[in-house]
Amino acid sequence: MTITRRIHNFAAGPAVLPVQVLEEIQRDLVSLPGVGMSILEVSHRSAAFEKVLAEAEQSIRTLADVPSNYKVLFLQGGASLQFSMVPMNLLGAGATADYIDCGSWADKAIKEAKKVGAVNVAASTNGENYSRLPRQEELKLTPGAAYVHMTSNNTIEGTEYKTLPAVGDAPLVSDTSSDMFSKPIDVRRHALIYAGAQKNMGPAGVTVVIVREDLVARSQKSLPAMLSYAVHAENGSLYNTPPAFAVYALGLVMTWLIRLGGLPAIAKVNERKAAKLYAEIDRTGFYRGTANNNDRSLMNVTFRLATEDLEKQFVKESTAAGLDGLKGHRSVGGMRASIYNAFPEEGIDELVSFMREFERTHG
Amino acid sequence: MTITRRIHNFAAGPAVLPVQVLEEIQRDLVSLPGVGMSILEVSHRSAAFEKVLAEAEQSIRTLADVPSNYKVLFLQGGASLQFSMVPMNLLGAGATADYIDCGSWADKAIKEAKKVGAVNVAASTNGENYSRLPRQEELKLTPGAAYVHMTSNNTIEGTEYKTLPAVGDAPLVSDTSSDMFSKPIDVRRHALIYAGAQKNMGPAGVTVVIVREDLVARSQKSLPAMLSYAVHAENGSLYNTPPAFAVYALGLVMTWLIRLGGLPAIAKVNERKAAKLYAEIDRTGFYRGTANNNDRSLMNVTFRLATEDLEKQFVKESTAAGLDGLKGHRSVGGMRASIYNAFPEEGIDELVSFMREFERTHG
Repeated sequence: MTITRRIHNFAAGPAVLPVQVLEEIQRDLVSLPGVGMSILEVSHRSAAFEKVLAEAEQSIRTLADVPSNYKVLFLQGGASLQFSMVPMNLLGAGATADYIDCGSWADKAIKEAKKVGAVNVAASTNGENYSRLPRQEELKLTPGAAYVHMTSNNTIEGTEYKTLPAVGDAPLVSDTSSDMFSKPIDVRRHALIYAGAQKNMGPAGVTVVIVREDLVARSQKSLPAMLSYAVHAENGSLYNTPPAFAVYALGLVMTWLIRLGGLPAIAKVNERKAAKLYAEIDRTGFYRGTANNNDRSLMNVTFRLATEDLEKQFVKESTAAGLDGLKGHRSVGGMRASIYNAFPEEGIDELVSFMREFERTHG
Repeated sequence: MTITRRIHNFAAGPAVLPVQVLEEIQRDLVSLPGVGMSILEVSHRSAAFEKVLAEAEQSIRTLADVPSNYKVLFLQGGASLQFSMVPMNLLGAGATADYIDCGSWADKAIKEAKKVGAVNVAASTNGENYSRLPRQEELKLTPGAAYVHMTSNNTIEGTEYKTLPAVGDAPLVSDTSSDMFSKPIDVRRHALIYAGAQKNMGPAGVTVVIVREDLVARSQKSLPAMLSYAVHAENGSLYNTPPAFAVYALGLVMTWLIRLGGLPAIAKVNERKAAKLYAEIDRTGFYRGTANNNDRSLMNVTFRLATEDLEKQFVKESTAAGLDGLKGHRSVGGMRASIYNAFPEEGIDELVSFMREFERTHG
């Protein structure tokens, strides 16, 4: 156990999970209490698994105050498959979807949507290396758009929306993979929310989709069944065998979050954690934050040093010090500290101390 | 631990896993040896996970003697998503795919393929409730077919191919979800093999695809990236975040299988287990096997009793006796004992004893 806690995992996802959850999974791994078999073995049609699924859904509904006219779906394929499912289900012939190009993952979503139908890039900060979010006045929205797609937190570039963009009457679709349930979310202002679980919600292997019922009705019968929101909604996420273990683990993380005090409580912790780290980055200029100050993410803190050699040295020494996964995404370089819900505050303190010492010896 | 082993899990999938594997997962759940974090937390870009992925692939290659011109892919979405991916990737415009309609899952595969392109049902035993497999001479194959699709084992109806159908030069595509690695498989006679893991290979959440390289080349660039075999092959199953835990657990099951002596060894065990059960079914006529004798599955043993009331009683008493999951699929009724690789032989003996006693008291 001590080995686990000595290494601090700053990876962008799959990422650190609450140790209490890991210990509960471990305890019950061979035999679920009252069931007599492992969660890895139970039929998805069994009462035992139906309970697991129902509880995970209920926890999500409780945490985010999900209105009753929204479905909560547990799917597979990650956000990457949603990049295709969203337009396949929601972008009818003759219609246009607006996409806000605010980061590398938004760019991927756009590329996939263009394979399906007409896309208008409502604004893009690609020319500024996605170092900031497009401003409201920059958005060129299409009247009557099928939907507007945004990315709530840009994992690679370290930016995060603090307030939702105004999109008029258009359905707002948001990829919330990297900040889902790190703070309160107003589900009512969204038409569809999707998130791969492997950052704040659980292990890799399950994708959560929260979708308003009128959007589910857009799914055409000609769609492949597995790519149809309507099929999954009608079958309560049991059209085929779901990723049972990942749903179970996600449910435990949701319970952990509820016990902590829910989204307002975790938001406070996340604000405090990020503030400590950004304060250190801004202290002397030895470190340089890469994201526009107002758009800084509380989940993925990106920064650079004066030279690439110094950055390599930083990665090397931090890894040796038990601070793992600080190397930035291969597409942008630099450093990235991913500090999701389950990342412990003492890990932030250790990183800040390390940064201070690194600056002293290399500054 | 004893609780787990007291209940025998005859579920059709997710299904029983080797207890040694469950115990290894449990032991290392909080901290993978030498890594210092849980398999649920490690980045899919880390050396630790790359090793897990490479070892799982190598074990599959070793077990099935997979030739070097075949790719081994770890995907999501189960066989159900393959029902769409196969035609989306392999069934070009103007071409026809032949499907052998030998069971309920084959029927689903056909329905999905028809959404994509031209399908010829080469033979069907639907009119006989899929109680037997189509015979070779019944197959009406299309000259120059894009591929021929078969289902190697029909989980619901309890039939299983003992020898592969002859399909000439057409690429043979097989859904092997429910008998993959329960016996030797001649990969060279297939062009593409796919299997959801949750019966013989591991927990739910990962799908194994073994595909010959010339078929991968058919994937069009216009396909959604997540649905393209070419994209997954080019990226070594790491185009996006894979279901890391399920791949890890599958790898452990493959290692368990290699240690047991591989596919010839497990085939002998499976033959012995199924023979015991079929012998009891055939002993007096109190039980009645539903599958044609020559086509009987070694994985899913289906049988009925004289009346539905008696069947209900059988399910009730067997469940109470710790023999779980014997109720047949809701679409066909009756009884089904799924006895995959990890199902222990003593569980067969217990079921046979139970059946004998049930016949004595209700016969």
